[in-house]
Amino acid sequence: MRVSRRAMSGLAPTVRGLVEVASNPTSPSPASPASSTASGWIRSLRAHKKVAFAELDDGSGGTLQAVLKGAARPIADSLSPGASVCFSGPLSPSKGSGQAVELLVEEASVLGGVEEGYPIQKKALPASVLRENAHLRFRTGAMGATMRVRDALARDWHDWFENNDFIHVHTPILTANDCEGAGEVFTLSQSLPAVTKEPFFPRPVNLTVSGQLHLEAPTHALGRTYTLSPAFRAEPSQTSRHLAEFYMLEAEVAFVDNLSSLLDIAEAGVRDTVSSLLHSDSGRARRAREDIARIAASQVASEAEERASAGLPPLPPACREPTPLAHLEAATGRFERVTYAEAVILLEKQHAEVPFERTPGYEEGLASEHERWLCEHFGKPVFVTHYPAEQKPFYMLPSDANASAPTSSGTVACFDLLFPGIGEMAGGSMREHRLEALKDSLARHGLPEAEYQWYLDLRRFGSVPHGGWGMGWERWVCWVTGQANVRDVVAFPRWAGSCRF
Amino acid sequence: MRVSRRAMSGLAPTVRGLVEVASNPTSPSPASPASSTASGWIRSLRAHKKVAFAELDDGSGGTLQAVLKGAARPIADSLSPGASVCFSGPLSPSKGSGQAVELLVEEASVLGGVEEGYPIQKKALPASVLRENAHLRFRTGAMGATMRVRDALARDWHDWFENNDFIHVHTPILTANDCEGAGEVFTLSQSLPAVTKEPFFPRPVNLTVSGQLHLEAPTHALGRTYTLSPAFRAEPSQTSRHLAEFYMLEAEVAFVDNLSSLLDIAEAGVRDTVSSLLHSDSGRARRAREDIARIAASQVASEAEERASAGLPPLPPACREPTPLAHLEAATGRFERVTYAEAVILLEKQHAEVPFERTPGYEEGLASEHERWLCEHFGKPVFVTHYPAEQKPFYMLPSDANASAPTSSGTVACFDLLFPGIGEMAGGSMREHRLEALKDSLARHGLPEAEYQWYLDLRRFGSVPHGGWGMGWERWVCWVTGQANVRDVVAFPRWAGSCRF
Repeated sequence: MRVSRRAMSGLAPTVRGLVEVASNPTSPSPASPASSTASGWIRSLRAHKKVAFAELDDGSGGTLQAVLKGAARPIADSLSPGASVCFSGPLSPSKGSGQAVELLVEEASVLGGVEEGYPIQKKALPASVLRENAHLRFRTGAMGATMRVRDALARDWHDWFENNDFIHVHTPILTANDCEGAGEVFTLSQSLPAVTKEPFFPRPVNLTVSGQLHLEAPTHALGRTYTLSPAFRAEPSQTSRHLAEFYMLEAEVAFVDNLSSLLDIAEAGVRDTVSSLLHSDSGRARRAREDIARIAASQVASEAEERASAGLPPLPPACREPTPLAHLEAATGRFERVTYAEAVILLEKQHAEVPFERTPGYEEGLASEHERWLCEHFGKPVFVTHYPAEQKPFYMLPSDANASAPTSSGTVACFDLLFPGIGEMAGGSMREHRLEALKDSLARHGLPEAEYQWYLDLRRFGSVPHGGWGMGWERWVCWVTGQANVRDVVAFPRWAGSCRF
Repeated sequence: MRVSRRAMSGLAPTVRGLVEVASNPTSPSPASPASSTASGWIRSLRAHKKVAFAELDDGSGGTLQAVLKGAARPIADSLSPGASVCFSGPLSPSKGSGQAVELLVEEASVLGGVEEGYPIQKKALPASVLRENAHLRFRTGAMGATMRVRDALARDWHDWFENNDFIHVHTPILTANDCEGAGEVFTLSQSLPAVTKEPFFPRPVNLTVSGQLHLEAPTHALGRTYTLSPAFRAEPSQTSRHLAEFYMLEAEVAFVDNLSSLLDIAEAGVRDTVSSLLHSDSGRARRAREDIARIAASQVASEAEERASAGLPPLPPACREPTPLAHLEAATGRFERVTYAEAVILLEKQHAEVPFERTPGYEEGLASEHERWLCEHFGKPVFVTHYPAEQKPFYMLPSDANASAPTSSGTVACFDLLFPGIGEMAGGSMREHRLEALKDSLARHGLPEAEYQWYLDLRRFGSVPHGGWGMGWERWVCWVTGQANVRDVVAFPRWAGSCRF
């Protein structure tokens, strides 16, 4: 059935599909065909006098050893890593280790050779060189695996949201708002002389910095919404955690009326998707675990090469052995929850190396160093809640909004979610749902009420308590795959000074 | 179990969840709780002297009738459509028709009232008024249903691609290319004085008009890729089929070496996802069918109101009855396939009303009127293939690329997929994978080779035969839901002159 459906759809079996069917003694395959055909790129090649072994990779997540001997042996001389080929022949149990089956090549055609100057080498290349060759770095084992894991993680989150009755909404990229009234935004050039002498839009238009404000609108009808959508910041900073163009996973939930429930929801999303990745028997989860191991092994190999070229001895095996999934366990239990005030006291008492200055540190929030210390201190993800209002945007609900009388805390019902090794992974808050209080907050933040009439309308007509959170998608992929730089988990990274292609 | 998991996640049951559990005699629910709590917005209200009925909608796709009588009856006097409420009380088998259970309200709180000037009325509003109030139109039954169906359709396609070993890749929005060397593009303003005196990027940067060229890069490593991603065209035209910001579903497949197989793949995607929507027993498909019926019923109601206010008699029942899913059947069989040359002959012979002029019609392709006629003629989706090369972009493979000698056809291995009632739904082609031929094509199209070095690299190193296609996502949602204007199937539509919010 599967085979005939595939044929109907015009798609040939992938390398992974061929290997899975041939390796699985219980698979309901048709009588093993006399000849299979596999297409892909040569990942590595070992040529001996009478036989050559080519590792064939088509990106499907599996590789296939192709054996070229007898009449097929000379073909290997015209091959090099990176070349694309189509091999046919019988699949046979492999005599080598590391694979169950191999393809005994009887027919071969070289689809595309490799000209001189191919930058992708078996030897690990510096990340900066690969980023400059983003169009080709998909061909490294680590980047191919990263792209597959990035996809699998998105699917897990989409499933989680669907199972919990959230609707995915495409929030707009072009916006007349600048969302938080803060941060640097990209603006569209309005001069389109080829089109018309008028500006295309009547007002200045920016690229969104967050889908949140827009997402609140459908939330007031659909109840639970989320978006995985591009966002943009014209930040000139060159850090390992910022891109000019990135993806954000943002969710909004109506009828949630307290911060504790909002933390429960955000925590459940992380815990459930990570648990699925770690423990699910699905093909998606199994392959993602294999790919994360590939990425870790590639990092170990790179480090070993760097040590070798620096004349350093190899690391002892205990340091070399990757445990690529171990760090994920930290996200499968309950997360720590501390208020900002509690965190400050902890940091003042225990984190003496970098003294926590109440001024100006208290006004600016936690430094990255503080965030790291808190995560290490608790040994798991940490929600820091109830930041001082003056550090946070206008739309956050004061912590005492539900109290019978205002308190003097001056904090808002918000959170930052800190992750070991990453720092801020996500942030969220209860939203100000009271019309008059929201107008006051706009005024206090120096924002023009006229620009926010549509946002105020959500509070004029059937307003509801609600809250939401957002997570930087590239940071998530970095954390899961154990990578350090967001530029290395996105297909075509853009940052200040760099927008090739 | 389900209840406790929900409680853990901080999420209360939705209205749909409450109704499904209470209506299903076989559901493994705990002993029916003495009291249930439902939050939502009042969709409609019927108040009698001793009892009032409120239809409660929380966006989850189900509504719940709340009965206010006895001590609860006076609450209804403070309610109006659009208000948000939280009702508690026992769920009980309904005496009315149209619902299995109803909520006998014992406790109620009004979360948010409705100020004067609420534009959403039970009476149908003109689409143009709703578009100007895009932040509130989610609250109409038709738009809420449209957003849910749009989400469900994306999930069906994501599933289809995953089942067929495609990897979803986030292609960039910011690009230094303008893709097809045609069409009007939006450009970023490079003056960011607040940030730096230098331009943020070293070269002019545009918003992508299509992810295709970028998607071809990972395809040369991952084999099968796709993206559902925003795209932008600065087209001043005000049609029902164009937006300045829209979504495109685009796919690329390596190792496909003929157009016929590519058509098979594109056709299988449409056929399989539509068949699933029509026939699957999943909750997702069932709810999507219900929502499509809601949209159709709303259109019928609008038309009836328009006729009434114009003083026309109601349509006879045969015309009023919506058959909201019937048109989808056309996409569940094999599609028609004709070449452009065959289509022209057909149109010249049979479509006499609008004569097919070889000049200039032949040079510009098929007119919309021709596309409509072809679909009606065949009564199903139609692939028109092998257009003259001069009508098409530089990257398309000539039809005779695989022939032993060039022919004089002058056509390319491409297709437009025409849909009844829509016209062009998708377009695709085999891509030119031969380095020298691609360089020649760039030159013929007057495009600077220097700008395309990265794209040429894909052909320098392990080039493979490949092809792909793209589909306008809003057109797809329009067709499935039986709607006429792409502005009405997107959360926040943007077109020339309009970018509110």
